[in-house]
Amino acid sequence: MAQYLLSYRDRVGARPDKFYKTTLFSGQHLMLGLNCLEPGQVQPVHDHADQDKFYAVLEGEGVFTVGEEEQVAGPGIVVWAPAGVPHGVRNEGQQRLVLLMGIAPPP
Amino acid sequence: MAQYLLSYRDRVGARPDKFYKTTLFSGQHLMLGLNCLEPGQVQPVHDHADQDKFYAVLEGEGVFTVGEEEQVAGPGIVVWAPAGVPHGVRNEGQQRLVLLMGIAPPP
Repeated sequence: MAQYLLSYRDRVGARPDKFYKTTLFSGQHLMLGLNCLEPGQVQPVHDHADQDKFYAVLEGEGVFTVGEEEQVAGPGIVVWAPAGVPHGVRNEGQQRLVLLMGIAPPP
Repeated sequence: MAQYLLSYRDRVGARPDKFYKTTLFSGQHLMLGLNCLEPGQVQPVHDHADQDKFYAVLEGEGVFTVGEEEQVAGPGIVVWAPAGVPHGVRNEGQQRLVLLMGIAPPP
């Protein structure tokens, strides 16, 4: 069943220069991945004109920007960035920020 | 920011007759929701010919069927059910099973 199930903890990673991204699963309609931000790392605000996206906070805490608004979010928070709405996240905390991320359709 | 962020814990629910489903966010390309199964409840095996789907276990433990395989999964496990692959889940545990679920494109 390795084909269809995984533990996100086995896929967490870090890069010194830029936040870490990895794909967990990808199909014709949806791509799922992890975004891992070390303290101080940032995903700059950007948008996807024709893709809906979400983040679910798994570990750590992030400062999320979506549209005109900004909010700190920790584990259990789900963030929605629909097509065309600018979004980004900063890790201003002391621990790694781990996000489950999905985007549809896939890039 | 209530528009773009929520805590899944505020949206957990239960039904006596059938597992509980609720939509968290829905756009043109992706729908995100919760599936909550009380002990003994089942989502029968089914498929979606033209939609990719995932579950992420948030609380509890489920017995997942995907394709020909079956596996018990708890918090931190991500389950992938691509278009056309039969999938379902049973709660054979003692506590509520809470799943973040996404499907693309939305039903």
